[in-house]
Amino acid sequence: MESEKQREMSNKASESFPMNAGDGPNSYTLNSSYQRGGLNIVKEMIDEAISEKLDIHVLSTSELFSIADLGCSTGPNTFTVVQNIIDAVKLKFQSHCIEFQVFFNDHVSNDFNTLFKLLPSSRTYFAGGQPGSFHGRLFPKASLHFVHSSYALHWLSVVPNEVVNESSPAYNKGRIHYGNAAKEVIDAYSAQFAKDFEAFLQARAQELVPGGLMALLLPGIPDDTPPSQSPFVRLFELMGLSLADMTRMRLVSEAQLDSFNLPVYNASLEELKALIGKNGRFSIERMEPVFRYAPTAETCTIHLRAGGMERVFSEYFGSEIMDEFFDRFAKKVAESSILADLTEQNSAELFVLLQRKSSTS
Amino acid sequence: MESEKQREMSNKASESFPMNAGDGPNSYTLNSSYQRGGLNIVKEMIDEAISEKLDIHVLSTSELFSIADLGCSTGPNTFTVVQNIIDAVKLKFQSHCIEFQVFFNDHVSNDFNTLFKLLPSSRTYFAGGQPGSFHGRLFPKASLHFVHSSYALHWLSVVPNEVVNESSPAYNKGRIHYGNAAKEVIDAYSAQFAKDFEAFLQARAQELVPGGLMALLLPGIPDDTPPSQSPFVRLFELMGLSLADMTRMRLVSEAQLDSFNLPVYNASLEELKALIGKNGRFSIERMEPVFRYAPTAETCTIHLRAGGMERVFSEYFGSEIMDEFFDRFAKKVAESSILADLTEQNSAELFVLLQRKSSTS
Repeated sequence: MESEKQREMSNKASESFPMNAGDGPNSYTLNSSYQRGGLNIVKEMIDEAISEKLDIHVLSTSELFSIADLGCSTGPNTFTVVQNIIDAVKLKFQSHCIEFQVFFNDHVSNDFNTLFKLLPSSRTYFAGGQPGSFHGRLFPKASLHFVHSSYALHWLSVVPNEVVNESSPAYNKGRIHYGNAAKEVIDAYSAQFAKDFEAFLQARAQELVPGGLMALLLPGIPDDTPPSQSPFVRLFELMGLSLADMTRMRLVSEAQLDSFNLPVYNASLEELKALIGKNGRFSIERMEPVFRYAPTAETCTIHLRAGGMERVFSEYFGSEIMDEFFDRFAKKVAESSILADLTEQNSAELFVLLQRKSSTS
Repeated sequence: MESEKQREMSNKASESFPMNAGDGPNSYTLNSSYQRGGLNIVKEMIDEAISEKLDIHVLSTSELFSIADLGCSTGPNTFTVVQNIIDAVKLKFQSHCIEFQVFFNDHVSNDFNTLFKLLPSSRTYFAGGQPGSFHGRLFPKASLHFVHSSYALHWLSVVPNEVVNESSPAYNKGRIHYGNAAKEVIDAYSAQFAKDFEAFLQARAQELVPGGLMALLLPGIPDDTPPSQSPFVRLFELMGLSLADMTRMRLVSEAQLDSFNLPVYNASLEELKALIGKNGRFSIERMEPVFRYAPTAETCTIHLRAGGMERVFSEYFGSEIMDEFFDRFAKKVAESSILADLTEQNSAELFVLLQRKSSTS
């Protein structure tokens, strides 16, 4: 039974884990202020990039500027992000009469109906939803001028096979993540991230015009830090411990716990740099960790819950135990020193600004 | 109360009446075979148009072919339509390596989540949803090569003001449509259709590339026929009579009935020709009525119900009386001679093929 679920989960691959739908109390729409905070911090960096790096020659004669937000969820953050980009582009190319087209992308199972209802009525761009996995092609060749993606690239397209294979040295029995796991488990996660990020870069290299920009923001880990010391990764460890409690309460079976692994990986700047270099189609224009305030245990739980975690856990363990699960998790976070331990150094959210090289080689 | 509802309805304008959502028993997804029948008939005409009228110069150097289906609903008909268009374009331009981008458009309140879930996994095009009213601009300038719209343009963006204004000579007391109404009522409907169709043509003239094609299919009326003799319009008359029955049962108040009018207009080829000529940006490449089989009363009811009518009636009169309403309507259709009276001459569904002129004048 469990292995069937696992297979199903692997098969559904990258179509599985959107943010919480609708606009109810646990929705992403109402619970994305933490993510918004990060976006405010990088706004200035995006403005600068557009002002300094973007050349008018990226536009074809049609004077159309196309923007894609990949992993946009249901709003409202995505609307702020694209408006900022548009404002900066207008400022840069003020003498031109540019039309803007914005593509909002997320998994097919994302709640696009809510996204569309929330579209600002005062918008000055043509808006569309482009459903599908950003690990593959989504757009025509050389059709985009700016790609944005925040809080999305740390989601893996699948759980690495090895970590749920009982006969593999990377079998991750009793855990749901790699934080305190064997090196083989960490390596399996890292390899899956590399595969996914390479596929992402390859698709975007085809879709972006030469000179086009790509701004990425993703939860990461400082260079040379073991995952067990990363606050983000430690939070996932507490999710695993909450589930372990619940096996003792017989709300979750041990087999279920053993076969579940969280498809999330926090990369380091070093790892990203190596993968971008290997792809070869982008120049790295800016790359740095971004410091975030430490949220309370409650806020932290609400935002993780709305931001994709409820969907992935409830698909596997059932929605009826989600309140119990997140209550336990919130208590563990409050009792732990994780949030107090957050520093500028270890709380790495990574900002990466890439430019599509002109050569097609 | 009623006039407030009416105002609300007018204000919501063209965002109000999508097909039935989801894939339940009354959904458009499961009940659109009548519409599919019409699309099969025009498939050949579209194939011919692409083969004979489409020139390779419509493509820019990027070799991208962009298609929009306006008023696409939730599928699956729209997928068949766009695949047919793509197959015909591939056949015509076989020596070229073209990428296809398809935009599925409907009102913001359309169920795009269902549409996206039903997208064929074997598709060979990039697919997006573009929400909004097709009576305004939806796409960048000169960005589309083929526009398709079927069973959508007969929906008016609003109920004409005059027909619900008690002091107007066009006040349509006791009726919900113009079939047996005073000339002033018919004129008010006709004027609203003209305004809407002009706005539609103006927007598409900007969005289509010169040489681009537009195929339209809409329920119409033969030239020089009074609306009271059109089978389509007579069906709406029966909907009004069903509601009148229900006022006697006190399920609907008379004031409600008086203030409601169905925002649907069946145009003639003559009317369309005049409006297209007035717009001036399109050449008429083909224009003819299409004959349809006569459905049974039951099929006819199911398809009208799923194809937008349930939404518009239930928003005004409440969803709880919809079964009663459509049961009464189906009986009236069965008792009437409308379906038996359908002939090649009077059952006009109108097919119109337009080409965007090269001059921008």
